[in-house]
Amino acid sequence: MSVLEAPAATSVEEAELRRDYDALGERLARRGVAIDAIRDKAAAFAVAVPSWGVGTGGTRFARFPGPGEPRDIFDKLEDCAVIHRLTGATPRVSLHIPWDKADPAALRQKAGDLGLGFDAMNSNTFSDAPGQKLSYKFGSLSHTDPGVRAQAVAHNLECIALGQALGSKALTVWVGDGSNFPGQSNLTRAFERYLDAMREIYRDLPDDWRLLTEHKMYEPAFYSTVVQDWGTNYLIARELGERALCLVDLGHHAPNVNIEMIVARLIQFGKLGGFHFNDSKYGDDDLDAGSVDPYRLFLVFNELVDAERHAGPDFHPAHMIDQSHNVTDPIESLMTSAMEIQRAHVQALLVDRGALEGFQEANDALMATTTLRQAFRTDVEPILAMARLGKGAALDPVLAYRRSGYRARVAGERPAVTGGGGGIV
Amino acid sequence: MSVLEAPAATSVEEAELRRDYDALGERLARRGVAIDAIRDKAAAFAVAVPSWGVGTGGTRFARFPGPGEPRDIFDKLEDCAVIHRLTGATPRVSLHIPWDKADPAALRQKAGDLGLGFDAMNSNTFSDAPGQKLSYKFGSLSHTDPGVRAQAVAHNLECIALGQALGSKALTVWVGDGSNFPGQSNLTRAFERYLDAMREIYRDLPDDWRLLTEHKMYEPAFYSTVVQDWGTNYLIARELGERALCLVDLGHHAPNVNIEMIVARLIQFGKLGGFHFNDSKYGDDDLDAGSVDPYRLFLVFNELVDAERHAGPDFHPAHMIDQSHNVTDPIESLMTSAMEIQRAHVQALLVDRGALEGFQEANDALMATTTLRQAFRTDVEPILAMARLGKGAALDPVLAYRRSGYRARVAGERPAVTGGGGGIV
Amino acid sequence: MSVLEAPAATSVEEAELRRDYDALGERLARRGVAIDAIRDKAAAFAVAVPSWGVGTGGTRFARFPGPGEPRDIFDKLEDCAVIHRLTGATPRVSLHIPWDKADPAALRQKAGDLGLGFDAMNSNTFSDAPGQKLSYKFGSLSHTDPGVRAQAVAHNLECIALGQALGSKALTVWVGDGSNFPGQSNLTRAFERYLDAMREIYRDLPDDWRLLTEHKMYEPAFYSTVVQDWGTNYLIARELGERALCLVDLGHHAPNVNIEMIVARLIQFGKLGGFHFNDSKYGDDDLDAGSVDPYRLFLVFNELVDAERHAGPDFHPAHMIDQSHNVTDPIESLMTSAMEIQRAHVQALLVDRGALEGFQEANDALMATTTLRQAFRTDVEPILAMARLGKGAALDPVLAYRRSGYRARVAGERPAVTGGGGGIV
Amino acid sequence: MSVLEAPAATSVEEAELRRDYDALGERLARRGVAIDAIRDKAAAFAVAVPSWGVGTGGTRFARFPGPGEPRDIFDKLEDCAVIHRLTGATPRVSLHIPWDKADPAALRQKAGDLGLGFDAMNSNTFSDAPGQKLSYKFGSLSHTDPGVRAQAVAHNLECIALGQALGSKALTVWVGDGSNFPGQSNLTRAFERYLDAMREIYRDLPDDWRLLTEHKMYEPAFYSTVVQDWGTNYLIARELGERALCLVDLGHHAPNVNIEMIVARLIQFGKLGGFHFNDSKYGDDDLDAGSVDPYRLFLVFNELVDAERHAGPDFHPAHMIDQSHNVTDPIESLMTSAMEIQRAHVQALLVDRGALEGFQEANDALMATTTLRQAFRTDVEPILAMARLGKGAALDPVLAYRRSGYRARVAGERPAVTGGGGGIV
Repeated sequence: MSVLEAPAATSVEEAELRRDYDALGERLARRGVAIDAIRDKAAAFAVAVPSWGVGTGGTRFARFPGPGEPRDIFDKLEDCAVIHRLTGATPRVSLHIPWDKADPAALRQKAGDLGLGFDAMNSNTFSDAPGQKLSYKFGSLSHTDPGVRAQAVAHNLECIALGQALGSKALTVWVGDGSNFPGQSNLTRAFERYLDAMREIYRDLPDDWRLLTEHKMYEPAFYSTVVQDWGTNYLIARELGERALCLVDLGHHAPNVNIEMIVARLIQFGKLGGFHFNDSKYGDDDLDAGSVDPYRLFLVFNELVDAERHAGPDFHPAHMIDQSHNVTDPIESLMTSAMEIQRAHVQALLVDRGALEGFQEANDALMATTTLRQAFRTDVEPILAMARLGKGAALDPVLAYRRSGYRARVAGERPAVTGGGGGIV
Repeated sequence: MSVLEAPAATSVEEAELRRDYDALGERLARRGVAIDAIRDKAAAFAVAVPSWGVGTGGTRFARFPGPGEPRDIFDKLEDCAVIHRLTGATPRVSLHIPWDKADPAALRQKAGDLGLGFDAMNSNTFSDAPGQKLSYKFGSLSHTDPGVRAQAVAHNLECIALGQALGSKALTVWVGDGSNFPGQSNLTRAFERYLDAMREIYRDLPDDWRLLTEHKMYEPAFYSTVVQDWGTNYLIARELGERALCLVDLGHHAPNVNIEMIVARLIQFGKLGGFHFNDSKYGDDDLDAGSVDPYRLFLVFNELVDAERHAGPDFHPAHMIDQSHNVTDPIESLMTSAMEIQRAHVQALLVDRGALEGFQEANDALMATTTLRQAFRTDVEPILAMARLGKGAALDPVLAYRRSGYRARVAGERPAVTGGGGGIV
Repeated sequence: MSVLEAPAATSVEEAELRRDYDALGERLARRGVAIDAIRDKAAAFAVAVPSWGVGTGGTRFARFPGPGEPRDIFDKLEDCAVIHRLTGATPRVSLHIPWDKADPAALRQKAGDLGLGFDAMNSNTFSDAPGQKLSYKFGSLSHTDPGVRAQAVAHNLECIALGQALGSKALTVWVGDGSNFPGQSNLTRAFERYLDAMREIYRDLPDDWRLLTEHKMYEPAFYSTVVQDWGTNYLIARELGERALCLVDLGHHAPNVNIEMIVARLIQFGKLGGFHFNDSKYGDDDLDAGSVDPYRLFLVFNELVDAERHAGPDFHPAHMIDQSHNVTDPIESLMTSAMEIQRAHVQALLVDRGALEGFQEANDALMATTTLRQAFRTDVEPILAMARLGKGAALDPVLAYRRSGYRARVAGERPAVTGGGGGIV
Repeated sequence: MSVLEAPAATSVEEAELRRDYDALGERLARRGVAIDAIRDKAAAFAVAVPSWGVGTGGTRFARFPGPGEPRDIFDKLEDCAVIHRLTGATPRVSLHIPWDKADPAALRQKAGDLGLGFDAMNSNTFSDAPGQKLSYKFGSLSHTDPGVRAQAVAHNLECIALGQALGSKALTVWVGDGSNFPGQSNLTRAFERYLDAMREIYRDLPDDWRLLTEHKMYEPAFYSTVVQDWGTNYLIARELGERALCLVDLGHHAPNVNIEMIVARLIQFGKLGGFHFNDSKYGDDDLDAGSVDPYRLFLVFNELVDAERHAGPDFHPAHMIDQSHNVTDPIESLMTSAMEIQRAHVQALLVDRGALEGFQEANDALMATTTLRQAFRTDVEPILAMARLGKGAALDPVLAYRRSGYRARVAGERPAVTGGGGGIV
């Protein structure tokens, strides 16, 4: 195992960055913002990467693998380590079971060697694993057959057990349960069954764990989905108990929905558990965070930064990336996405909140929105780069990665994969 | 005041109806359904008409009034009486204050003479009434100014007082509060203020009243709306108390949203208060119920009929029409819509629920959905017509209305109205 | 090879159907409609089934195969024959190449034995076939690499050649070409390359063939799609020539789009080539035709029937089903869908077009839409059943299929398939 | 008449701007971009303001006027002059007839005194003007009654005549024609009538004029709109002739539609006539340009800048703002919007097109999209401010406007307006 090290910045690069940083510092100082404090917050920011994200994704039509696809969770952890080394922003990995099932001791050892930790565990009851006794074709935690529900509950408990051995502190539950036809499923009975099964899982949740549930409007079910929106997600979290919280995936909403408002509501009622970051234009496109509508990502962070000012010590929503990389090198997409998420966070930190509140109170809509936009349009790249520099990460992670030859090297080590019908993403 | 009477059916018409009814009865009997029982339920079905619906609606671009526009609430009540006489399905009228403000005794007298009662009262804080002290330009119940909030609360309490004098038992609150720009409003503070104001209203709600709140995704606010979806609506109802319930307007959702699922969730958690029926293709189009997607209307009633089997005596969601009639005679649209809603109800009654449950339990998606569709595609017109015949209503209400010359008559009595910019709907 | 025969109707079944048919006939006669003429048109109606539709579909998350999955095109043809025998409505099969590639003589022989013909050929350049030289990961007919474009052109020409050997008369081209990121592709250059490649295919199109191009808003590309909507599709057909026409898949549009209007426009400008029928609620859900919004399907046929009155002999748009059957027996879904499409056609035939035109001319919106709805709500099941009876098909095809034991039989003959990641649909 | 003059920048302000400009200049120079050349292009950029935009807009629910609402076109021109003086970016005004009908000589005199010119003329056949002979309730250019169509044609010709007297060179036609119910209108006949009427208008179009047609998905018609999308718009432009071009309003599309792609297609086929700039989240919200999704605005300009490199001298699409200002001072919104549009243009100028093409050719999706994003995230405010400084416009137009006391002054001169039902926007 050879871990990639970030190359040192050249003196020219560093000098240029310093000049840009100082010029920005001067502008921000005029607005009353101390740039170094912002840089320190940027440096402290972290987002987890998904183990499944380092493989090439696909659609139901096709999957087009790239060179050097990771063969197992150990390969995946190495790829994740590259991302963290070069960006300094992704210290933890989120596992998907049974895809990443392995000896816990070996996993801890490998992660430790790579300088990585483990984030939330993800269960999978939306596809059938080889050798699985009962099928999830017609649902899992909400299935009409109690045997299938019991199997799905047991699988989730197994995820918790593995997570405990790994030092994880959260279980994320996303199910594909739903229906494809009006009438196929009794919408109420299905949700009752889901809640009962979730109560069983919650009952065994360790005291220091959180249970994160994820809503999604549609896909893989195309008429109804059991956990279809934040309203249902909130009801789940409330029914289960204090450690049950809602996860917001940015691509899981109806067209035009105001996502930052959902974030605000969940915060207000104590139920925001975290995020699956990505971007989308049409459905659950799982595109790179900030690549389609960067202002939307900023507006989400605007709510988070605003909430942090009033929130108690328990307010620490999980930050995770959940993307499908169909046409890019997954490592490059994950690095870029981590930095875009960090960028939105930093931009949100620049909002002049005192001014904003004054404008809001006075119903000065134009100046209020201008205040947000002024923060958003600030080019904070020098702050992000300086934060990376301070942590020994790369000034330009994608460039450093390309120059490293990492992909070509692992392509030599890992056998080529053929396409197949659709990706498991 | 001359009230229109439904014309008697000719003997030929009645004979033809009887033959159609009997033929349908035979088909239904083969499915184990007794047609007379269905007809009796159809006859008992009622939906309230909105006082504002009998005037021609408009858009922000224009309003094109028709002949004989009602001048005041008394004219409106006469138009509503026509609808009820001819359809037998709309015994109650829902008032909008201050538009319909009038002496309660006179209102009761008039309604009584016309054989009408009063349904839910509707407050209006989305436009400024002439002489109003403070403006609702920047909100009402969620306004940053406590004076505006107090004014809006007082207005709602006035609506309750008037409603008590009229025998109404519910207040419907829909506000246009929201924002047009990111940052214009603090999403959380605005909702806190809204909840506080609603608590004041709820505190004075008579014991036998229900408080119905209505969510809407957008319009008139175009970036955020304080009560934007059923999730927020549910939180309101839960925060306020037992008599606070959610109203579902079929046109107030994001594109593609599964509305029947929202209905199911609200029933399950004891918070479905009722409906504003209409149809839509794009936004809050306020088109005639069932005119764009009749199957969706059926699926909503499918949930209601299913719920009635298990529900307690308190389950009686309010049925109201809320439409904007821009290009039709409003009386004709309201009659037709009332019958379409009745039709969906009757079709839902025909679903073979025993068979459906069996198919659902067995995950026989094809037969489950076929079971719904078989009920939907039954042409229940003979049942509806027979129900009308039994109540002395018109066999063909639109035809009877046209033959009556009612519109021409009131056009002679009521002065012509000029268009104006946009309608108040 | 054993072909399923439709069971004869019992005398009771036939007598009941006769009574229902006569009762409906009487009602229709009152409206001036001769039921037998409608039944004859219903009997003449045909829609093609897709070879790929008889296998279980899937999503990018999973595929859950059923018992007796067809192993190859010969198995698929047998399944298609069952559909046609029992419904009498699907005499032709549409092939997908290279999935269905086989010796043309063997294919003709098998189809002939089964009483089937061949409809449009479908090329596949949205996934990589085993052994394929160049990858379609970044596009096919619009790829930046001329070598890839040439390969895709050659593949389409191969489809034509095979189709000629089979008696097909059309090539359907759907490509997944597009981009996942703003900037990934130059939108104009990509379309220029696509057009150039299509011109090469069109140049070799046999004189008696039609070239059908299919637009789709998104998926598998998630930021831009080269042939994204009917506007672009129209431009293609116009650029290529007279025999190039547009194919409309009902699930390939933006939310809320008025599809029947697109159909009308393409007819008006001589470019409607045909349909891929299915239904959807969210995206390209590929659900069973008429299962989510049956009125929309009716409104499409309303345009077709209206156009037929004025159209020349060349107006014969192709009718094909394109669905993904994830939770049902594909044979059952295809039979039911064929009948739903037939139903919409028959309902559209019942529209009183003289009355409708009068109402339209007079801007009598209410009676115009009532005229459509009256036709739609007519329960035409007796007409469809009588048409099947007359052709020796099954009264109740799904019931007959279930009773036949066909699925269990082929499950014994065809080895079980394991799930896999995502379906090729 | 007193025209507002932009205040001179203080020496401190100017010095700070100079430092920011130089720092940005250094960064851009490293990318090979000469900042002064960009500043000159920024200074040359112009967008027209709509006369109707300086009054407060409204919705169908209400209109809440602000102080100092313009009473007539002469007041409106004064407001427009303020916008141009302070931003230096809006030299022309687009008129709406009959709202702005006045003596042409007086209009020219006033505009000349204010330093303004006239952009495209806009006809209005979506509302009934006082005293108008026939109503547009059921359509205008596509009405079933030839008399109404003739009236609408005559009105458009009158707009041209007035525009000729004013020095305008374009007519913009947007109609609200459509239907609210399936069946209300024959979709094909309506479009035929529309085309015939448009041909009459085009026949009289002066040789040096352009005819711009605008599509819109819905509103005020809620089931179908005659010119519903760019496909239909393109057909109109092609049918009419060379000087007929398509206008793209950014808020007139279906949810999720890729607007920049439509822009690209219209450019490719020689039919892009221009823009109505605004922003939207849900429907035709008419919000301030760039306020909801600034990246989308940038992507549109990315297409324009790309096209300019290849385009002939005739490529000069019209830039117009079309917004409804319901909660802001319209002058402030229009100034801010003009600058946001200018900002998007400047950002698009910064795209490294050589690098982009290389990445596109190599299917390097990540670097291609990063190239766009790098340009977008550049804070070009110093460039815009320097361009304003060079033209004698205000460094900070909104601040200068607020300090000027203009609104208070005109509020004293212009009588207060009461709200009314819905705005004419």
